[in-house]
Amino acid sequence: MFGKVLIANRGEIALRVHRACQEMGIRTVAVHSTADATAMHVRLADESVCIGPPAARDSYLNVAAILSAATITGADAVHPGYGFLSENARFAEMVEAHGLKFIGPSPDHIRMMGDKIAAKDAMRRLGVPLVPGSMGALDSLEEARAIAEQIMYPVLIKAAAGGGGRGMKVARDASEIEEAWRVARTEAKSAFGDDSVYLEKYLDRPRHIELQVLADTHGNVVHFGERDCSLQRRHQKLVEEAGSPVLTAADREELGARVTAGLASLGYRNAGTLEFLWQDGQFAFIEMNTRLQVEHPVTEMVCGIDLVKEQIRIAAGEPLGYTQKDIVFGGHAIECRITAEDPDTFAPSPGRVNTYHAPGGLGVRVDSALYSGYTVPPHYDSLVAKLVVHAPSRPEAIARMRRALNEMVVAGIRTTLPLHQAVMDDPEFQSGDYTIHWLERFVAGRQG
Amino acid sequence: MFGKVLIANRGEIALRVHRACQEMGIRTVAVHSTADATAMHVRLADESVCIGPPAARDSYLNVAAILSAATITGADAVHPGYGFLSENARFAEMVEAHGLKFIGPSPDHIRMMGDKIAAKDAMRRLGVPLVPGSMGALDSLEEARAIAEQIMYPVLIKAAAGGGGRGMKVARDASEIEEAWRVARTEAKSAFGDDSVYLEKYLDRPRHIELQVLADTHGNVVHFGERDCSLQRRHQKLVEEAGSPVLTAADREELGARVTAGLASLGYRNAGTLEFLWQDGQFAFIEMNTRLQVEHPVTEMVCGIDLVKEQIRIAAGEPLGYTQKDIVFGGHAIECRITAEDPDTFAPSPGRVNTYHAPGGLGVRVDSALYSGYTVPPHYDSLVAKLVVHAPSRPEAIARMRRALNEMVVAGIRTTLPLHQAVMDDPEFQSGDYTIHWLERFVAGRQG
Repeated sequence: MFGKVLIANRGEIALRVHRACQEMGIRTVAVHSTADATAMHVRLADESVCIGPPAARDSYLNVAAILSAATITGADAVHPGYGFLSENARFAEMVEAHGLKFIGPSPDHIRMMGDKIAAKDAMRRLGVPLVPGSMGALDSLEEARAIAEQIMYPVLIKAAAGGGGRGMKVARDASEIEEAWRVARTEAKSAFGDDSVYLEKYLDRPRHIELQVLADTHGNVVHFGERDCSLQRRHQKLVEEAGSPVLTAADREELGARVTAGLASLGYRNAGTLEFLWQDGQFAFIEMNTRLQVEHPVTEMVCGIDLVKEQIRIAAGEPLGYTQKDIVFGGHAIECRITAEDPDTFAPSPGRVNTYHAPGGLGVRVDSALYSGYTVPPHYDSLVAKLVVHAPSRPEAIARMRRALNEMVVAGIRTTLPLHQAVMDDPEFQSGDYTIHWLERFVAGRQG
Repeated sequence: MFGKVLIANRGEIALRVHRACQEMGIRTVAVHSTADATAMHVRLADESVCIGPPAARDSYLNVAAILSAATITGADAVHPGYGFLSENARFAEMVEAHGLKFIGPSPDHIRMMGDKIAAKDAMRRLGVPLVPGSMGALDSLEEARAIAEQIMYPVLIKAAAGGGGRGMKVARDASEIEEAWRVARTEAKSAFGDDSVYLEKYLDRPRHIELQVLADTHGNVVHFGERDCSLQRRHQKLVEEAGSPVLTAADREELGARVTAGLASLGYRNAGTLEFLWQDGQFAFIEMNTRLQVEHPVTEMVCGIDLVKEQIRIAAGEPLGYTQKDIVFGGHAIECRITAEDPDTFAPSPGRVNTYHAPGGLGVRVDSALYSGYTVPPHYDSLVAKLVVHAPSRPEAIARMRRALNEMVVAGIRTTLPLHQAVMDDPEFQSGDYTIHWLERFVAGRQG
């Protein structure tokens, strides 16, 4: 096992990794920008190294400084957390080139899954379900028409080089396909300099459901069930649940078996998450995250597993030591991402936290690097606390979350606590019948 | 189900009961002394009533004031917590006489178990194992000798009217019995005005192991396994574990079957705990607590049950809805009782808590009514926080507790946090091989 791990991150996830290391008897090295000198992860780590000025590109993305900190402190391994360098294949390669272990997948797999087209091709070959559509770019409007008739309207025409919603048009029926084709190509040309477009089935009321997997270096791959992350605003998840209110045990098993077999054939290792859209009982792969995710705690709560410790053990070469049938799902977990933002306008609200009081009691977990007197810097992601609850059933988990939100105090800055309270109080959320569009409408309803 | 519950207690247990009620949609009434006007349980409850001056006898033991608060606020039921009026049969009777439900056992069972001799008689009849010894008071030194020979030395001669260690003498062999008989009788006479003494087998290295039970009003009785509470100082528990490091599943099942059958025949209802001494594989009943115990969270963690919600459901007449075989034990839990005392001298240390910071992360539960700026009053029990951890195994639970203790901050007053850290760091504690005498020696070793 490693003697010392460098944590190449900040905030709650740096603290999360530190906690796992400390419980395993592994010493930790925190790295930090000048803005984070008094951050909780720095205060608790065994050692810390300043790696640059506040801007992330000069500190938490500063590969040379991070590698030099690892070398100076004699670390054996690097945990990247999420965000920053966690899905940077080149960083993973450089970590290994310096004789350290990268606690994550191989650089090749990071690279493969980082390229959305390559990831989809790989998943198609592995038999993982995708959104039906054209295989690559369309040659003509006639081809678009033919595929749309085959997979049935509504369809989406998307820029091949696109992203961020630009160069993307919906055709709800045959009368709209020509217009969609024309507009998508024009937007694609002007936004990306390339008018190649492709076509996909448009899912008008999907849920976002993802599957957590772990693979060791001995060919064992298991999954830990799904997380439902449909509550999103501008593609940012706000609330996550495990399990999904709409999935059956059979759905979970079937998808899990297909995914784990596929990843085993790929030789994948360490933690990963496959993200899907789900509608009318059908899964469609979107992308794979080759790292720990923000929302991993809900899975830990229902499976009784410590995913970060598992990541570390796998990176150290240990076999999983259990098989799929040993993994049992108990109860229901919900996570609320509390951010330092105005709960109505979502304007960032960094600043000094005069009082921080975490809720407690049975079934409540708080992952947060906040403390009374801490100043939330304006330079980074606005996530300041993850409030996670676990209870025997979904209604009891919601009741527990309402109770815990009510006890939590983050005074001095604005946070999204009131938004989370409103979501938990909402009968539609409580019914479990929501799609990825639900939260946007809910927020709009509150605003106006 | 009840619409409103009055919580006849203070501190962390009042908060514990409030949390259960809030999650069940039940409104809460806090009662408080003038010293507790700004206490957390008062701040969080839906309503609160001041019931008297600081001294407990004038407030938390003031039956008339509490019943009048219940009547004025329209409460349906009263939860007594632990301590104060929780094992006062007369209080339970008066609550019921006022048309309210007492969330606990029947007054008759509270009374029966409150009388140590009657409790032992009842348990003997029910086939629950007791410490071998005389049945009641001894007639003569000769009778003492005869029983001691039969049950084998060492034996203990104890005042029948005794308590608190007075009128209690050990005879390690036959040469010491006459002296023990004489001294115990003399002490008994002078301390209690009654020289009746009885004799019991003396257990020189016992563990304190207790069994948690729940019984509904429909004749169903289940147990939730044992807690090992051997780490005590002056009969005060400091650290509790579930399960016990020395018990097997078969031990637990056998004792549990005997106890639940016995309590079913007694018609017992609601929560209760049977306390045993355990040595060389033998259990000996000491007493039964007819209430929720301080250390109930460790059981909740390993069984995934909410004991307070169960107490409330039972009091409302609901059946348990599960049987013994549905209760599964998962992982290991440890609780540290953090008190406002000097960790070396145990001198009380009330006062203002300038900063309170609770540890977080996976498998950590904090039951505490502390907050930054709160002043711990000098009038009550010194318990200020229960830090509870849960992990797949005992070694992992200890590692997690060490990590959590390290994160916890209670600044401004002295607490027993350093003592708990020393216990968790100790190889003998870690080995699990300890008796009820271990902590006294450990504390003495630290002091000198």
